Amino acid sequence: MNIELHLKIQNLNARYAQAIDDNRLEAWPDFFTENGRYRVTTAENVERSLPLGMIYATSRAMLRDRVRSLRDANVYEAQRYRHVIGPALIEATEEGGTVAAQTSFIIARIMHTGETTLFATGRYQDRIVFDDGGARFAEKTVILDSRLIDTLLALPL
Amino acid sequence: MNIELHLKIQNLNARYAQAIDDNRLEAWPDFFTENGRYRVTTAENVERSLPLGMIYATSRAMLRDRVRSLRDANVYEAQRYRHVIGPALIEATEEGGTVAAQTSFIIARIMHTGETTLFATGRYQDRIVFDDGGARFAEKTVILDSRLIDTLLALPL
Amino acid sequence: MNIELHLKIQNLNARYAQAIDDNRLEAWPDFFTENGRYRVTTAENVERSLPLGMIYATSRAMLRDRVRSLRDANVYEAQRYRHVIGPALIEATEEGGTVAAQTSFIIARIMHTGETTLFATGRYQDRIVFDDGGARFAEKTVILDSRLIDTLLALPL
Repeated sequence: MNIELHLKIQNLNARYAQAIDDNRLEAWPDFFTENGRYRVTTAENVERSLPLGMIYATSRAMLRDRVRSLRDANVYEAQRYRHVIGPALIEATEEGGTVAAQTSFIIARIMHTGETTLFATGRYQDRIVFDDGGARFAEKTVILDSRLIDTLLALPL
Repeated sequence: MNIELHLKIQNLNARYAQAIDDNRLEAWPDFFTENGRYRVTTAENVERSLPLGMIYATSRAMLRDRVRSLRDANVYEAQRYRHVIGPALIEATEEGGTVAAQTSFIIARIMHTGETTLFATGRYQDRIVFDDGGARFAEKTVILDSRLIDTLLALPL
Repeated sequence: MNIELHLKIQNLNARYAQAIDDNRLEAWPDFFTENGRYRVTTAENVERSLPLGMIYATSRAMLRDRVRSLRDANVYEAQRYRHVIGPALIEATEEGGTVAAQTSFIIARIMHTGETTLFATGRYQDRIVFDDGGARFAEKTVILDSRLIDTLLALPL
């Protein structure tokens, strides 16, 4: 068991969640590689092998565009997220050192009024690369347990 | 502080939760030793030293029977669970290497309709053994914080 | 990355949460140094740089007084908490070995009736010291995501 690898992934996940929960959305694309993929889908779609998700981006530039749209729409100001993330399960180490890992999450949503609800649950299916700049997501698939899609889902999960 | 031991227990807990949350119930009994005990009770019962729980199994075979019943009743299809599990607190290391540990959990339940609720909270009181086959539960007591018993509690926690 | 330091902080956080969730409130002040500070505030207040919080204590003795009041008011008997705490993010190591760390949390509240709700979410902003007696909080700021203040907030978070 590679202790340091586990801790590095845990640290990446914690910093990722913290950036979103702190409303530092501009930092969000930097958690991905330049050609990093970000996809949001549901467990139901995954089981039916439906490749389509609700959200799909294939580069850091697309993620930056997304953040700009969110800021223009000002949707984030009305709410906060709070992620709680479980330990990562390392599934495979690919050639070149890319690691496939899976992590459970629960996200609470806190509205501007203070109302708090259990917003989303699911798991991250990630491919992580390590280089001089640290750990980054080459791929992050957010697999939601529920198929109820909130219209505010546009925010990073 | 034994870092590797902590990580092994964390890994066991994460794989245990993942099997249930992925609806791989047939894998669930394998997380226990052949004579492994699984008990579900409430904090109130524990405080009153009431030995009885809502569910009690004393072998892997009993757990397999349980899974078969659940599959026959088809109860699982209607819902998903999502566990989020805290870090394990190691309480004692017994002779022979058995470890007593305690872990907090929160479980969300996601109905087929997509409705998500905070289903159960509590702590695991575990006795874990390590052998060639990896880490297994010799005993897992699920101590629920709430005394409200859902009729669907039959699913593995 | 200092693996042992991460694990020590994780262990401190887990024991802290366990003491509260087990209703061992008398153990709570011992998680702080003699002049330890405990503050509860909201993210909104922190963003506006409002120094005031809802609760502020500047010594272990004040925390002990607080526990005595809670026991007299008997408020705790009516409810339980269940913390689930994420991994700690170490932000800085100060001279003398004090560590600044940040940790996300979700707290469920379980009423005597069994009713369970998502009670509070937020993050701990901690300053932790290490000595012969183990790890202790020199400062713990509880930053709540929601500004809705429950009248029962008097309980330790």
